[in-house]
Amino acid sequence: MRPLPEPVRLAELASVVGGRIDAAQGGLRIERLASLASAGPADIGFLSDARHGTDATASRAGAVLVDEKLRRFLASDTVAVVVDDAYRAFAILAQWFERRLAGPGAATGVHPSAVIAPDAEIGPDVSIGPCVVVGARARIGAGVRLASHVSIGTGARVGERTRLAERVTIAHDCEIGADGLVHPGTVIGADGFGFAREAEGWRKIPQLGRVIIGDRVEIGANCTIDRGALDDTLIGDGCKLDNQIQVAHNVRIGRDTAIAGCVGIAGSAIIGERCMIGGGAGILGHLSICDDVVVSAMALVSRSIRKPGFYSGSFPLMDNAQWERAAATLRHLPDLRARLRQLEFQSRGRS
Amino acid sequence: MRPLPEPVRLAELASVVGGRIDAAQGGLRIERLASLASAGPADIGFLSDARHGTDATASRAGAVLVDEKLRRFLASDTVAVVVDDAYRAFAILAQWFERRLAGPGAATGVHPSAVIAPDAEIGPDVSIGPCVVVGARARIGAGVRLASHVSIGTGARVGERTRLAERVTIAHDCEIGADGLVHPGTVIGADGFGFAREAEGWRKIPQLGRVIIGDRVEIGANCTIDRGALDDTLIGDGCKLDNQIQVAHNVRIGRDTAIAGCVGIAGSAIIGERCMIGGGAGILGHLSICDDVVVSAMALVSRSIRKPGFYSGSFPLMDNAQWERAAATLRHLPDLRARLRQLEFQSRGRS
Amino acid sequence: MRPLPEPVRLAELASVVGGRIDAAQGGLRIERLASLASAGPADIGFLSDARHGTDATASRAGAVLVDEKLRRFLASDTVAVVVDDAYRAFAILAQWFERRLAGPGAATGVHPSAVIAPDAEIGPDVSIGPCVVVGARARIGAGVRLASHVSIGTGARVGERTRLAERVTIAHDCEIGADGLVHPGTVIGADGFGFAREAEGWRKIPQLGRVIIGDRVEIGANCTIDRGALDDTLIGDGCKLDNQIQVAHNVRIGRDTAIAGCVGIAGSAIIGERCMIGGGAGILGHLSICDDVVVSAMALVSRSIRKPGFYSGSFPLMDNAQWERAAATLRHLPDLRARLRQLEFQSRGRS
Repeated sequence: MRPLPEPVRLAELASVVGGRIDAAQGGLRIERLASLASAGPADIGFLSDARHGTDATASRAGAVLVDEKLRRFLASDTVAVVVDDAYRAFAILAQWFERRLAGPGAATGVHPSAVIAPDAEIGPDVSIGPCVVVGARARIGAGVRLASHVSIGTGARVGERTRLAERVTIAHDCEIGADGLVHPGTVIGADGFGFAREAEGWRKIPQLGRVIIGDRVEIGANCTIDRGALDDTLIGDGCKLDNQIQVAHNVRIGRDTAIAGCVGIAGSAIIGERCMIGGGAGILGHLSICDDVVVSAMALVSRSIRKPGFYSGSFPLMDNAQWERAAATLRHLPDLRARLRQLEFQSRGRS
Repeated sequence: MRPLPEPVRLAELASVVGGRIDAAQGGLRIERLASLASAGPADIGFLSDARHGTDATASRAGAVLVDEKLRRFLASDTVAVVVDDAYRAFAILAQWFERRLAGPGAATGVHPSAVIAPDAEIGPDVSIGPCVVVGARARIGAGVRLASHVSIGTGARVGERTRLAERVTIAHDCEIGADGLVHPGTVIGADGFGFAREAEGWRKIPQLGRVIIGDRVEIGANCTIDRGALDDTLIGDGCKLDNQIQVAHNVRIGRDTAIAGCVGIAGSAIIGERCMIGGGAGILGHLSICDDVVVSAMALVSRSIRKPGFYSGSFPLMDNAQWERAAATLRHLPDLRARLRQLEFQSRGRS
Repeated sequence: MRPLPEPVRLAELASVVGGRIDAAQGGLRIERLASLASAGPADIGFLSDARHGTDATASRAGAVLVDEKLRRFLASDTVAVVVDDAYRAFAILAQWFERRLAGPGAATGVHPSAVIAPDAEIGPDVSIGPCVVVGARARIGAGVRLASHVSIGTGARVGERTRLAERVTIAHDCEIGADGLVHPGTVIGADGFGFAREAEGWRKIPQLGRVIIGDRVEIGANCTIDRGALDDTLIGDGCKLDNQIQVAHNVRIGRDTAIAGCVGIAGSAIIGERCMIGGGAGILGHLSICDDVVVSAMALVSRSIRKPGFYSGSFPLMDNAQWERAAATLRHLPDLRARLRQLEFQSRGRS
């Protein structure tokens, strides 16, 4: 991140996050928010996890956001800005720096190369970039920003202040709510994967549902969220999706659930509220996951989960030679179990 | 799905699917095809799997497509439309509703913002959308529809009536047959991943083959299908690919094979006809899978499969504490086996 | 690949790769470089692996690149071009054929439909295709080629001779070095996935870092490489990335590392030089992998790797019935181990 055009007093930053500082240090001049490793004397860093304690001790940062418990890691010449939750304070400060560094933002208006259907409804204060295509009867809310090469299908709706990055596609009749953010290349509303097997091959099942996305949803780059077959695919308010996530038809995701990159969710799966799904995990179709479930990276959820908790299911990493032996033995596991039982039986007979 | 502008008599729908109804019910007015859960008295649903039997019993649907065996699940006031294969009948009816609900479709013609090479061959009745780019000597068949931001490379070919959704890319000299459908963001014909290691790094191996795709192929959103190194990458007639599938160079996929989302297929793998590959599965390179193989989700096919059947290979999901113990023990599996053998030996000595 | 417009003498090809041939065969006319399976008498193939020896014996190729040791596989009427490293020789020859077959290449200049900010710096001899968007203060180096629908953000930089294929997005302030190649649909510089949990949901952490990519880097289609939160995401010189790879914020990848398709790398992971990561593998965040590590397909790297070597971690493929038994027993593995220990204890007591 680049430095502020004009340094800011530490006292001002402390008040932004409701942090406590030694009053004598309020005049310290800060130019950047920086990681502990790269920070210098004019930078403020943060420490929110004891595992990074030694980084904090070694850091050249002028000041560090920290909670009372981790303060002991700071070198004596580093100024502590003491807060209750250093990660949250970091988030607040990052937003503050972002606003200070922001340029004028995309100009409002419609680029002359955009192709807007005459009966599309375009709200006030929108910014529509080059080569954007907006279809018939689409509704674009006030303050929406559509970056270049975005396409909005017939009858689709984009809620107020939502920003769609370069070449996001929202297919016909799909909807995204207010204050959303979708990163480049994501496709919302392509056909779900539905075919009926016939003697002569596969018969396509038309996908007649929609995708309905709530408010304050962020979706990463190159995701795919398919429209429903009959009912709609639903993503609740406040959900956060990372990059390259696949959401199949008729999936329903509860509010404030966060999903890491490369997750695949099969058709008609239902995911609760406030879940956290680890990167590369898979979720089979036609099952339910209750609220407040955490799934670890690359686990396959192959059955419904009815109890909040932390679930895992990946093969542990091994040296290849060790893995080859373990993998080969795995096939014999039921046999080993039967033989063990046999030995136990004999042993009991003998004792 | 939205209701028909004008309701239809149940007798007409029954005849569309060759279904049997109580003649007295032929006059029932139907407005929508709907899921059992969301259907109301003016809707027709379907039941094709006994696992959804209780949904059928509880459904408010006016009529339900069902086979003779599952009919018992229907509530007494629900009209049965009895068919041999309810899922297939659903597919047929969904196609019927889709046609009834369809708007006028994309107008034929070429949008003025499209950039078409003068020597491209453009067939009759095509629809070419905004910002489409068609390269030199490309051939676009009759009735083809190219949505906005599609790019067709030099010498590429798109068969009759094939539809390419927003920003599909077909690279130079690649081909897709007739009656295909490709969803947004898919890339056909990027370079395969080929490099030779040298002392000073990697030397690129130019990818001089093509991608050749047959007729009636559907490919989901944000897939990548690489061109061959020397020979071509081949996808057979009638194949169905879901979203975010990666097909590496020189892969060959037999006809009517269906592949679920997020599957990755490495270079030169050969996949037979009528296979079904589960979501997130991986297939290593330079191996063969025979016809009629089913691979379950997230399995890694690491050797050739020569016998039709159902193959699996994912780690089972566990509570995290249980998983930690199981994963830790897994490393010791060959040792456990050796110790068991030792005990058996001693036991035999003793008996 | 298509044949040369004019055949070439084998002696010329042998000299291109520094290969040895029987002088009497120097006049053989060659038209194509082809795979052993598809080659005919006017084609040259290559054999670099004894596993393909029988293909070489059966091949109708006129000539074959081969090292001394594998020469014995060639049929008596096949001309050997003997080299030290047949795969490297194949790469060199493929580059030679590519140059011979290449058309005139994209014309230099800026397509009239491109939208270039007035203060962007555009080097000499660039080719900028239809519907390209270049933002304010972006710098496009000499000889760069931007295919259609590419977007370059404000202040971003593209190094000399780098080629960006259709609809690559480089977000604001990100950089790619010289002689790079990025395939269609790849997104460089979208926001990293960073949120702080609050009582009322997730607070976004602005992503204020950049993506900095070195020279001679190739990146496949539909990849996503996120910008850093505070520091930058870094990809070293000479790295090769296949398709659909996800690189999260603040990842650092050392030079000449090669990564196969569908790999996901979580935030702040550090990967060394000359590593090779297999397809579909996952790498957790905040860990380090040292130089010269090989990770096999679909393994999850869940801890730091400090020793060069070959690491694996995928569940072996099984017939489904066998897999069901093995998977069910896996849960009992710690219990089996305890029971085995108990038997060993009893056995020792008895002996």
